[in-house]
Amino acid sequence: MIEEKIKELGFTLPETPKPLAAYVPVVLSDKLVFTAGQVPLQDGKIKFVGKLGLDVSQDDGKKAAEICVLNCLSVVKSAAGSLDNIESIVKLTVFVNSSEDFTAQPAVANGASELLIKIFGEKGKHARSAVGASQLPAGAAVEIEMIAKLK
Amino acid sequence: MIEEKIKELGFTLPETPKPLAAYVPVVLSDKLVFTAGQVPLQDGKIKFVGKLGLDVSQDDGKKAAEICVLNCLSVVKSAAGSLDNIESIVKLTVFVNSSEDFTAQPAVANGASELLIKIFGEKGKHARSAVGASQLPAGAAVEIEMIAKLK
Amino acid sequence: MIEEKIKELGFTLPETPKPLAAYVPVVLSDKLVFTAGQVPLQDGKIKFVGKLGLDVSQDDGKKAAEICVLNCLSVVKSAAGSLDNIESIVKLTVFVNSSEDFTAQPAVANGASELLIKIFGEKGKHARSAVGASQLPAGAAVEIEMIAKLK
Repeated sequence: MIEEKIKELGFTLPETPKPLAAYVPVVLSDKLVFTAGQVPLQDGKIKFVGKLGLDVSQDDGKKAAEICVLNCLSVVKSAAGSLDNIESIVKLTVFVNSSEDFTAQPAVANGASELLIKIFGEKGKHARSAVGASQLPAGAAVEIEMIAKLK
Repeated sequence: MIEEKIKELGFTLPETPKPLAAYVPVVLSDKLVFTAGQVPLQDGKIKFVGKLGLDVSQDDGKKAAEICVLNCLSVVKSAAGSLDNIESIVKLTVFVNSSEDFTAQPAVANGASELLIKIFGEKGKHARSAVGASQLPAGAAVEIEMIAKLK
Repeated sequence: MIEEKIKELGFTLPETPKPLAAYVPVVLSDKLVFTAGQVPLQDGKIKFVGKLGLDVSQDDGKKAAEICVLNCLSVVKSAAGSLDNIESIVKLTVFVNSSEDFTAQPAVANGASELLIKIFGEKGKHARSAVGASQLPAGAAVEIEMIAKLK
């Protein structure tokens, strides 16, 4: 059902991204799922590279955040079996690759938050931090980690 | 009782801050409360804007951290009913808007940590990370997220 | 057993580091242990100071990450009694003191991740975020926080 909702919204749940290094994409501890930080990896390459406020526009930053959060859902699915087993989204931490004077991290992070609410409704409402990073893995414009709770 | 203690210390618990964007200020998962990142919002405006090491002094950074943590407590209260329902403060992550050479993030974060210990005593002792961010939402000098445990 | 494994690998579990400020190094909430952010403190001083991409090499960054994660284990031990009481490593957040163009945070963080897997095997596999910070406490090259689960 949730996967159909994602399609209806015009998005595709990606294949579970392989970690960029020596770790696993997701860990389940009781009912809480902790994802590794996800970058805007699409079809095997990072789609948005660079700094907000310098070489990535706010709109592209928002699109990057959408891809990151779809990757988060993909790795949660790999632990949960199905996205229908998600009880609620608990927390996002959104790191935005930011120039020294870019201060619209919340607008970028809304790309992820608004999509979650469209997909999950009330259950998609989460706590969130949005923070500027001086750089991110492989130059990614955005990196997002998620805590979700399973049924 | 805890709210009276806050008043005795000369501080005021603020109204629950509205999120700057599409998310909720706090999520409860079993006994753990996760807050959204809180900036030094006071009376509807961000009181300390700018970078430590550049245009915000260390003393003002500490004051900013105090306001952030009071906002964290305010949103925890909105989930917990009363601050007296807090069993303990588990974790703070303190993001400090830092110039490239400002390295006293722990001194800034102490504004938050020391206030929590004054308010809650032993139960206020928490694990903490203090980190430099290249920028923060709306240019805030400090952003703090909290994990607390309820009774 | 785990401590012997650490010795076999040529490392030493350090004394539990004292927090740099007003907080505690570790908090236990039910079965989850949350550590404070650990810097590469060795024999009372921070061994690797500076920015990756500027004055710290990638190899030294990796060594810094190893020391950070050993310090994380030391503080987990102080809460758990013994490292043998660790059920699994859940999550690392690795903050890398990064110049504006350093993008190999995952390679640096691998210093920590690979060591955990050598020490704990399957139980050491964790979710992870690696992020660039504009600065870190006392100029540390790396700061790592850990969530572990006890038996």
